[in-house]
Order: sequence, then C-alpha cells, then structure tokens
Amino acid sequence: MPRKLAVGQSGGATAVINSSLVGVVREAMQAGVFSEIWGMRRGVEGALADDFVDLSSLSQEKLEAIAYTPGAALASSRHKAPDEDIERLLDILRRRDIVSFLYIGGNDSADTVHRLAAHAGHRGQSLQAISIPKTIDNDLRGTDHCPGYGSIARYVAIATMDSAKDTESMPTMYPIKIIEVMGRDAGWVVAASALGKRSPLDAPHLLYPPERRLSLDQLLRDVDCVYRRYGYVVAVTAETLRDTEGRPFADPELRSELDKFGHPLIRGTADMMCRIIQSELGPRSRFDKPGSLQRMSMLCVSDTDLEEAEMVGRAAVRMALGGETDRMVTLIRESDDSYRCSTGSSELSDVANQQRLLPSNAILDDGSDVSDEFRRYAMPLLGRRPLPVYARLG
Amino acid sequence: MPRKLAVGQSGGATAVINSSLVGVVREAMQAGVFSEIWGMRRGVEGALADDFVDLSSLSQEKLEAIAYTPGAALASSRHKAPDEDIERLLDILRRRDIVSFLYIGGNDSADTVHRLAAHAGHRGQSLQAISIPKTIDNDLRGTDHCPGYGSIARYVAIATMDSAKDTESMPTMYPIKIIEVMGRDAGWVVAASALGKRSPLDAPHLLYPPERRLSLDQLLRDVDCVYRRYGYVVAVTAETLRDTEGRPFADPELRSELDKFGHPLIRGTADMMCRIIQSELGPRSRFDKPGSLQRMSMLCVSDTDLEEAEMVGRAAVRMALGGETDRMVTLIRESDDSYRCSTGSSELSDVANQQRLLPSNAILDDGSDVSDEFRRYAMPLLGRRPLPVYARLG
Repeated sequence: MPRKLAVGQSGGATAVINSSLVGVVREAMQAGVFSEIWGMRRGVEGALADDFVDLSSLSQEKLEAIAYTPGAALASSRHKAPDEDIERLLDILRRRDIVSFLYIGGNDSADTVHRLAAHAGHRGQSLQAISIPKTIDNDLRGTDHCPGYGSIARYVAIATMDSAKDTESMPTMYPIKIIEVMGRDAGWVVAASALGKRSPLDAPHLLYPPERRLSLDQLLRDVDCVYRRYGYVVAVTAETLRDTEGRPFADPELRSELDKFGHPLIRGTADMMCRIIQSELGPRSRFDKPGSLQRMSMLCVSDTDLEEAEMVGRAAVRMALGGETDRMVTLIRESDDSYRCSTGSSELSDVANQQRLLPSNAILDDGSDVSDEFRRYAMPLLGRRPLPVYARLG
Repeated sequence: MPRKLAVGQSGGATAVINSSLVGVVREAMQAGVFSEIWGMRRGVEGALADDFVDLSSLSQEKLEAIAYTPGAALASSRHKAPDEDIERLLDILRRRDIVSFLYIGGNDSADTVHRLAAHAGHRGQSLQAISIPKTIDNDLRGTDHCPGYGSIARYVAIATMDSAKDTESMPTMYPIKIIEVMGRDAGWVVAASALGKRSPLDAPHLLYPPERRLSLDQLLRDVDCVYRRYGYVVAVTAETLRDTEGRPFADPELRSELDKFGHPLIRGTADMMCRIIQSELGPRSRFDKPGSLQRMSMLCVSDTDLEEAEMVGRAAVRMALGGETDRMVTLIRESDDSYRCSTGSSELSDVANQQRLLPSNAILDDGSDVSDEFRRYAMPLLGRRPLPVYARLG
C-alpha cells in the first residue's frame, strides 16, 4: 500500500540541516513505497496553514545542490504548538493521508514531535512521528553528538585562531579580545574554540561556558593575570553567560527581551565585558561576535557533519518504515581510534525539553584550555580536513 | 658593497599582509646583496625603540608557513610619527647602516614613508624609502587595487550569501538582516557583498556605502519597499555610514570616540538600524557584524590576492635596489579578459593621505545591486576558486 510522508525543518538554521532533508528525500525515493513526499514550509507553522511543497519530483541535481546550501530550504520556524495546534495538525495529516511525520530540529522540536505522537496514540490515528536531531548547541540527550555541532565547532575553532592573530598583530593597540559565541545553556561551542590551541600562548586564554557563573571580580582577575603574562588576552564567552547572581552578563536594557520559549535573547555579553575591562583595567578591548555566520558557513563545514546529517535523515525514513514512532534518531560512536558513527534511536520522552550540558571537567578549572578527553571527543567531529596551522616568527 | 634592509608592517592586519613580508624577505635573500634583513617589531613604533628582529636566517619552511598565516607576524601599529620621531628614526637607521626601508601599509603608513624620504633628502642621508600597498579598504590612489581587498571581498561576498540563507530560513521570525562591514570612508567592501548575487531575490537587497548619506526616512522607505516585495530584507551597510547631516549612524554615546588619526571609531551602525526599523516598521531585525574576522580569514583568502601580496613585496625590493625612493609599489591590470596584473609605482606625494572612493555609479541608484562594470573589476580579484552556488527548492 502506498504511503505518504511529510518532512519539516525547525529551529535555528545550520550549514547541514539541508543535508538531513536531502537524506530523508533520497531514502524515501529509494524505498519505493512512498507515493507522496511532502515538505512542510516553515515547519509546523506552515503545515498548520496547509502549506506543503511536493518533494517527490526533485531531480538528483537539485537535491545535490540543496545538500550543499546552508540554511533551511523549506524555511523553518520556532512555533511553539499548543495542544489545539497539535490536534489541528493531526487533522491535516489525516486528511492528506500522511502517516510518516519526520521533523528535523532540536529540543523544542522534539517536544512537538513527542506530543504529536502521544495525541495520535490517544486518537488511534496511525502515525510514525520521528525526530531528526539538529542543533549546533549539541545539547540533545541520548546521542553522541548532534548534527550541526561539528561544523560550528570547526568554524569557532578557526575563527578563534584568525581573530587571535589580529590581536597578536596589534598587542599595544588592542590587547584584549573577547569572542562571543552561541550554545544557549551549554558550553560545547565555547569549548570548541580551543581545538586549534597548541600551546599556552595560543588563544583562547580564557573560556567562559554558560554552565559557569562568573563574577565581575573574577573576570577582571582572570584578564589581568593573562595580560601580565602574555601582553594580550583572547577570551571566548557564551552569549548567554550569567553572573554569580544568575543575571545575564549583558546590557540591562536587553535583559528583558524574551523569545517565545522563554530563552532569554541576550545581545551584548562581550560588549559588556569589553566596557568593564577597559574602564576597570585600562587596556583597550574589542570583541568579535560572528552571529549567525557561525551556524551557516559552508566553507567551514565539517565533511563528517555533512555526511552524518544525511545519515540521520535516511535513518528516520527507515524507522518510519519499520513502524516506529515517538523516537529520535541518535548517533552512536562505534570507534574512537578510527572514528566511525552508526545510527540508533531514543525515546522522545528521554529527549524532549531536556538538556545535556558540557561536563564540568571538559574545561580546565582555570578556564585556560579544554581537557584531553574533550579533545578526543570533539576533534573527529571537525571532519577530515585538518585545522590550519599558523606560524610565528619565533 | 653589502646593503642592509629593514621591513615593517603597519595598520590593520589582513589575511595577506604576511605574504608581502615573505615576498620582501625572499626577494632580498635571492638578490644576494643584502648582508642584513631586519624586521621592525610593531612598525615604526618598535623601530623607534630599536626593536628589530633578524629575518635573514629564516628557513624556507618558516617563510612558507608565515605566508599562510593571517595577521602581521612582525606585529603592527598605528603610531602616527611626528617629525621628531621621523628624525629619530633616521638616526637609528643610519646607526644600523640601513639604506632600504620598506613599509607595508595603507594611506597613513604611506604618509610616514613619504615624510621619512623627504627628511632623509633634506639631511642628505642615503635611503630608499618604499611603501608596499596593503589595505582592505582598497582606497589607495595610483594602483588598480590594494592587496588585502580581494580576500575581504571574497569573505564579504560569501558571508552575505550565508547570512542571507539564515534570513531566508526564518522569514516569519527574523525578516530583517543588516550586515555591517568595514571599508572606512570607501564603499569597496560594501559593494563586494553583491558579488554572489545572481537574481533580484538574492541578497543583498540594499547597499549602503559610506559615500552615500542616508536619512532615517530613506532607510525606512527602502526597507519597507523590499519587505513588501520579498517578505524579507538583507541590507549591507558600512560601519562608517553617516546620515544626511553628516552624523555617524550609530549610538550617540559612541560618536565621541576617535582614534589617533582622527578617523571616528564607530560601533553600532547596524545595531542602530535594527532598533530604528523594529520600532518604526515592526518586523524583527537582526544584524551580523563579522568584525576583525572579515580581514583575517585564511579559509576565505583569494589565491590571486595572496600571490599579488607577495608580488608587491618582491617589487619593492627591486625598486630599492634600483635606487628608487619616496614611491609606492602599484598593481597595473594588464588584461581584463584573462586577468593579469604587473607591478608599477607611484610617487608617494600622490598617494599619502589621499583616498580613492568607490565611483558613484558602482552601486545602482536604488542601492539594489552593483554595476556590471564593478563586477568586471572585482570578480577577478576574488581569485580562481569560484564563489559557492546555493540553491532554492524553487
């Protein structure tokens, strides 16, 4: 009996989220049992408006081009679907005879899929609701890592090396550099900034993951100590860093801005740090904030990440064909020596609205580097193209 | 008779400024007439402190590694040397028997070299003072283009494509994106952001070079018009944009900060635009500000730029050997069809403290694209690796 499938993209775009979409479409085409393959425009937001696009007639050339295009080709959303929306979505899927619902996203999206599966179960509506992991935050539980992380890790490692060379070039003019990176509540992206560090003199000198609260005094002591030792300082901070009182390390004016899920939208952590350091310690301070570019660079992409993103998309189709539902595809590390991952799956109730934070020992106590264990974990995720090696005159 | 040479790096670091340094050292080594090759630490700032480093014993491996390292390996400075410093520098050069003074930098550095040559002439001190062009602003007169520009142009073109894919992915959440780029008073970098644009729908939709004054009303009209047509807007602005009254388009608090040359240091143009657009028009607005990363990316480097940077360094050594002084090396475009440049030279009095701004017709009147003439000028400078081609589902 011919089946019908729908796939959507949700949450922040990444360099490899289209690779997962293409994985779904390719596997569904090859399975030969899907009479229709639909893409939801803007995730459930579009699906609720019955805005679907036919993906079953895409050429292989187009699919190949989409796989190498950063961002969400279907467009994405952060729509937080209340239960009425979940019910309405089930009505729309039933009317369209769609029995396989695949959704590419992070924690919030996993929650949507989980509730969709539960409501379908209560109704007795046949539905395979599968979540395909995607988040640069790398904070999904149950999977070795998340597609999107390897590429932002590679971007941030290289950007830190590049930005540090700027600071080294002008130590008397601008000795303090703060680089502000993403990662929401988890420090995986902050930690990745140290993957190109080969000696204590190399940047970053200070790492501030969001799991660690930081007092103003501690910041000033840290910066002063490194500045006295090397003559310049490169620190990497999470944009979501908080002080010891739990307050965002950012302009008070911006603290009140909240997005729909209640995650505080903070701009200005690095800016704030620069102002404090310059006024309290004196040396001129600058910051770099690569913003959405850190998520979107196809030039910095990890080839391993790109391949695994397609792999989890394909695995989701096979799970749906096997009748599974209410599960998320996971990545399982098979070997550390010659890195290799296979796919598995987790119950969505173990994933949805949970977070896997950076282990507290991944960053050394003084914040000057990452642990060897973190390096062994993260380096293979950067892919097979090595990081650049930069030189000094000596 | 053995000669002695000194080379320094000045002004903002770039991805290719070390390639010029390596060009100088390689050509000087090959010439076989230099008994000593000195590098000045931190430009004239270090030279005035007699801080020189021996470059004549660097291995070919080290030189190769330095050429592929972004930033100024000798360290750089923005020291504005008053006449007393120029005199003192001449004393130091004479004491060290240095007769060839090569200085890699932009307009301000050219002025330093020009005054050094003039003072040496008045004294009757033998000196070949040669300026080696380097500026991502591309605003030096007398040369087809400036080493450093091709690489930042490639970075900004790709970053605009990447950032726009983020905006396209979330048109209902964050429909307005402002990308803030460098270029000081010249719009060459702003214009380069359009080099990956292939259709009117592609970003950037609005270009704001610093040569054009922009009123708040015009900004709001422009953004509203594009937003109504496409549902999202990607605009690229110079960080130095000014309003019709000539005031920096940035936070008033930041307007007072001036650097030593009197160029206003403006942070916040894009931030300011976002706040105005969001409060006056409504749609949520975000900005990307790649900061120093746009100057420093070896991953985005133009191979042509890297080669030409070495070429101008080598040419400066030959000019010094030929007894020339008070001149800057220039690039001369020999052919447009199959792009090729050779080197020439200009009098420093025609270069120092002058600016070559972007021609007013390089950006279309409505700011929506660049002219075909600008494309023909700029595309070869991006090098032989093509820009990525991104796809839409259609």
